[in-house]
Amino acid sequence: MVGYVHEELSSEEISRQEGLYGPLAQAVRELADASIRTEVDDASVAAAREEIEAITARLRAQQLDGSYGIRFNSDGTGRPWGNAVVGLRNPVAPPLEIRRDPVGKAWADFRLGAAYEGPPGLVHGGVAALVLDQLLGEAAGAGGKPGMTGTLTLRYRRGTPLGDLHGEASIDRVEGIKTCAVGSISDAEGVTVEAEGVFILPKWAREAMEKQQERFE
Amino acid sequence: MVGYVHEELSSEEISRQEGLYGPLAQAVRELADASIRTEVDDASVAAAREEIEAITARLRAQQLDGSYGIRFNSDGTGRPWGNAVVGLRNPVAPPLEIRRDPVGKAWADFRLGAAYEGPPGLVHGGVAALVLDQLLGEAAGAGGKPGMTGTLTLRYRRGTPLGDLHGEASIDRVEGIKTCAVGSISDAEGVTVEAEGVFILPKWAREAMEKQQERFE
Repeated sequence: MVGYVHEELSSEEISRQEGLYGPLAQAVRELADASIRTEVDDASVAAAREEIEAITARLRAQQLDGSYGIRFNSDGTGRPWGNAVVGLRNPVAPPLEIRRDPVGKAWADFRLGAAYEGPPGLVHGGVAALVLDQLLGEAAGAGGKPGMTGTLTLRYRRGTPLGDLHGEASIDRVEGIKTCAVGSISDAEGVTVEAEGVFILPKWAREAMEKQQERFE
Repeated sequence: MVGYVHEELSSEEISRQEGLYGPLAQAVRELADASIRTEVDDASVAAAREEIEAITARLRAQQLDGSYGIRFNSDGTGRPWGNAVVGLRNPVAPPLEIRRDPVGKAWADFRLGAAYEGPPGLVHGGVAALVLDQLLGEAAGAGGKPGMTGTLTLRYRRGTPLGDLHGEASIDRVEGIKTCAVGSISDAEGVTVEAEGVFILPKWAREAMEKQQERFE
């Protein structure tokens, strides 16, 4: 499987990169929010666009051929910095800072702003699914059974307001290579969306990861 | 319901805003991709961040208090420009340009890059859910039964590679205010993810929209 890259970094180097790229991604997140909500005059919008295009060109002067993938140290700690939900370097990610418990629980407090809207003032139903897919997958992984999503079912109890939210997930049961996790998103008044998912580490992925493992042993 | 705003705009004014804000959002999308993939030196990254923060401050000098919501003309044509999947002004949206058929079909060809990654080189399972939630909802709406997602079920057949993709959805059946839609995402080799969803226009939303209707009649 492409993209699982063994890149041994010291904790100091990881901290340095976090301090460099985290703020860059956060600045682009803020810019995305501002670009949706701005009401400044046309000339200012056009000038901003031109400056943004110039910055992009400079950042692209030297760049990865493709996506970031997942880099990891030989101790297994991963850096999913391009991930669409938790990626430190990904401005599309809110990002969620997910906490995990080895019994198979994962949870996060997070804020979703204007960029995650579906119905007016509400979180896009698919964004709720995006967040829950990640949370349920992390709960499965925290319990020692990482995997890719096999099935995911969402039940929308009511609209989820944009703003401060809480998400949590836990392992419901494990059947061989299949792990079933359940979870929900809540606002101050309670649960708005519930989810159940089955996570499986497919054979091709298991084999590819074993090959990667051999490659740097 | 907050955010359904009647804002009567001429087709010329809509075209003007599309020409102004569409390119701004696209420039921020490109910047987001570059910020994930850049390998330029630290000083260049830090300089880019500072410039981006300055641009954001200028765009925020005059801005909406909250999210964009959905603006619409009295003929009912809407402008969901902040939408996380199709929003013209939303850099987080790919965005999908969804085509619709009144028999209750919706489809789109789109490209997902580094910002939508989950497993290395693959579309985040939750991003596939996000896209399918929108496509199924648009199919329901195209068939004359718009609604909010009640339930959504995803079946992941295999990993969806980042790159050029196709998505489509259609109405499976209608039961009163409930519309069941089905759909899928495909790459060049075929279907990667299947979805089924039930869409309902809740009572509070129907009443709120009727009130809005009265307000500008």
